Amino acid sequence: MADLIQPRTLKGFRDYLPSLMIPREEILQKARTVYRSFGFAPIDTPALEYTEILLGKGGAESDKLIYRFKDHGDRDIALRFDLTVPFARFAAQHVPTLGTPFKRYHMGPVWRGENTAHGRYREFWQCDFDTIGTTSNSSDIEAALVINALLAAIGFERFEIHVNNRLILSGLLEELGLADKSVAVLRALDKHKSVAVLRALDKLPKIGIEPVVEEMVLHGVDAEKGRKVLELAGFKGTNEEILAFVSQKFGNNPKAADGVKRLSELLIVARESGVPDERLRIDLSIARGLDYYTGTIFETFLSDLPSIGSICSGGRYDNLAGLYTKMPLPGVGASLGLDRLLAAMEELKILGGVQASAPVFIVRFADTPIGVYEKLAATLRAAGIGVEVFIEPKKIGQQLQYAEKRGFRFALIAGPDDFASKKFKIKELATRQEADYDEVIIISQLRTMLGIGLP
Amino acid sequence: MADLIQPRTLKGFRDYLPSLMIPREEILQKARTVYRSFGFAPIDTPALEYTEILLGKGGAESDKLIYRFKDHGDRDIALRFDLTVPFARFAAQHVPTLGTPFKRYHMGPVWRGENTAHGRYREFWQCDFDTIGTTSNSSDIEAALVINALLAAIGFERFEIHVNNRLILSGLLEELGLADKSVAVLRALDKHKSVAVLRALDKLPKIGIEPVVEEMVLHGVDAEKGRKVLELAGFKGTNEEILAFVSQKFGNNPKAADGVKRLSELLIVARESGVPDERLRIDLSIARGLDYYTGTIFETFLSDLPSIGSICSGGRYDNLAGLYTKMPLPGVGASLGLDRLLAAMEELKILGGVQASAPVFIVRFADTPIGVYEKLAATLRAAGIGVEVFIEPKKIGQQLQYAEKRGFRFALIAGPDDFASKKFKIKELATRQEADYDEVIIISQLRTMLGIGLP
Repeated sequence: MADLIQPRTLKGFRDYLPSLMIPREEILQKARTVYRSFGFAPIDTPALEYTEILLGKGGAESDKLIYRFKDHGDRDIALRFDLTVPFARFAAQHVPTLGTPFKRYHMGPVWRGENTAHGRYREFWQCDFDTIGTTSNSSDIEAALVINALLAAIGFERFEIHVNNRLILSGLLEELGLADKSVAVLRALDKHKSVAVLRALDKLPKIGIEPVVEEMVLHGVDAEKGRKVLELAGFKGTNEEILAFVSQKFGNNPKAADGVKRLSELLIVARESGVPDERLRIDLSIARGLDYYTGTIFETFLSDLPSIGSICSGGRYDNLAGLYTKMPLPGVGASLGLDRLLAAMEELKILGGVQASAPVFIVRFADTPIGVYEKLAATLRAAGIGVEVFIEPKKIGQQLQYAEKRGFRFALIAGPDDFASKKFKIKELATRQEADYDEVIIISQLRTMLGIGLP
Repeated sequence: MADLIQPRTLKGFRDYLPSLMIPREEILQKARTVYRSFGFAPIDTPALEYTEILLGKGGAESDKLIYRFKDHGDRDIALRFDLTVPFARFAAQHVPTLGTPFKRYHMGPVWRGENTAHGRYREFWQCDFDTIGTTSNSSDIEAALVINALLAAIGFERFEIHVNNRLILSGLLEELGLADKSVAVLRALDKHKSVAVLRALDKLPKIGIEPVVEEMVLHGVDAEKGRKVLELAGFKGTNEEILAFVSQKFGNNPKAADGVKRLSELLIVARESGVPDERLRIDLSIARGLDYYTGTIFETFLSDLPSIGSICSGGRYDNLAGLYTKMPLPGVGASLGLDRLLAAMEELKILGGVQASAPVFIVRFADTPIGVYEKLAATLRAAGIGVEVFIEPKKIGQQLQYAEKRGFRFALIAGPDDFASKKFKIKELATRQEADYDEVIIISQLRTMLGIGLP
């Protein structure tokens, strides 16, 4: 035998074992169901694109982060590093045919050669949804409703969607004569925001705002004006108090007034649609580093684990695909960070650790032909009950050990005599409780025990 | 504005628009449900692996087909070109912990820099399932049951699972003293097999078997013995006639006898489990080029489109992961070719062309606030009815045009007066039939019209 090759994955990459893959599939399926229930349609794009498409012409700055190489045709190609850029290319290419508004979701892996500290992976999944081709506030509101429905469907009750509108900040900057410094202010605020999150954790109550002001000053912003920006971004209160504060301070500015109006409408409609009040919080401190957001901004935090950061973020942008088309494509959307969410669920111990993908396990006896068990299994599957027949008639104890280790919920036990008398034993593996049931009621009994009702 | 970048995909790659992505998601979900209902658990592996893992040490021969490059750490890495090799690596690494038997499914994209003629793509999806760690014929039988359930769940009634067992061929080769020529014979038979498929199409009834014999002779096989192999491979008849023919000709050979026994048991159990007889056909002509199959072999053809080739193939192998571990891992499995299946469904015109992911569309009137419609939508979604609220109160005609183009089934139409009188209009978009319904019965009415029963 030749030397063995060491089986291993690349640094920053990982296998998904069943215990992690089962919840991943469940979350993806729930996301699909929620996105579809709002009329978002699925798309997919290739993992590989021309580097020019992904980075723009030139675009050497992200070089270190992306997996870029020459293919056999000497094309300069790369693996996508997010789903937004491929969607912009997709939109430029297909939206003229598909028409607007175009509502899509897209779920898939992306690749970044990032530093692998802090549990970051170089391959991770994103689940994006966007509505493009409209500036209507209805779409911004819908995005908030989708985020709420998504987290609720995944099983969370305690979470907060932080919402802001860049127009408010833009209005303030206009009033302060700082409109041309907006990028510098955004960068500084982004820093401030992480401070705010740390504060919320009560871990570093004494971090001042001066470092943020200093950063602004470095970029040519007057210190006093910088403090005014932070006074706004740092204002705390109920949603109503925050909106009143903004209106009072500089409500005469048309941009700020528009921002307040859009946020107000969002709050009202969300309440009418049944979103609990405590789940939506206006947070003037969220700015999001990406320069291309221009209106509503979303970040979503788990109340029981805010330190993991936002698990669903997004916002409104003026133009998605300006690199590829002259057609203006304003829109709004957000992205669910699947791997961060799974990490949070692991930390909160709400992943079951189940490896079994079917709930029922059929034990085999050596004296009964496999066909008898497969026929029984086929009957159960036709009634919507997933069932695994063990591959060999090993000792009953060994078979049950396998079933317990994998996390099956019930074992169905029947030997030749039982098939003759038409009685089957159902054993609940966690409690080891068991009882005999007549053949005619076995399906309804299992469906009841599994909580899936009658067929 | 800078020069625009031309939006385009790489040669051999394609976008999935909603009209193709909706059926792809449906097939994947059905496959997931079927695999799980037999107890197969999901896994995933990285898209990128060490080239050494994918190609073995050396392994320059497949060089042209794979996307291979150096990463920023100067590692020699490549994109996976199938799901089998990564699974072998995975099994060597994790099965010692996970235990055997290990039953997994894995669905995802793979990449090959192939010639793009004949509609081949360089990125395509595979959906594999395997049971490893056992030689039990129960697992071979289960693989046939899974393939049958899979195709049935996807919606096909007319298909044939062709099944063979390499042991029969091995037995014949032993009897002929050709055991050392098995690879040459397999290659020649593979050629013969495509001839057999062409024959089934009645397009080339006169292609002889002599070219196949000639190929064998080139590899040192005696011509007369070659013809004996082809006499076997070409034998046609009912399943029972074929098994009787093999038993009569060289049933004394232990390998051949074992092959016959395994195939017989498979046919009996499949029948007992409710697989229609006509769906399973013993076909001694299928050999499958891959040298690593050693027992049962499967290929699956759509009766209405056999020319597209096998859409689900696989078989039993003696050792999955010999490159990476000394632990012997025999197993059996098969792979559903998702893109080939979608191409077949396109050709058979059984894809709906629907772009809408929700069935119901809500028309908006300018005089009614968006909150009223979103509240209605939230009520419908809570009752399991997917619904899109249009983003703007445009003219009713424009809104209905959008809804028709996207393929929504029903429009729900209500203005201020209707909300006051609690009457809603439901319009079936395909027939343009419409009627008014009282608010209290709108959910049950829509659920009935959508065929999803009462909540």
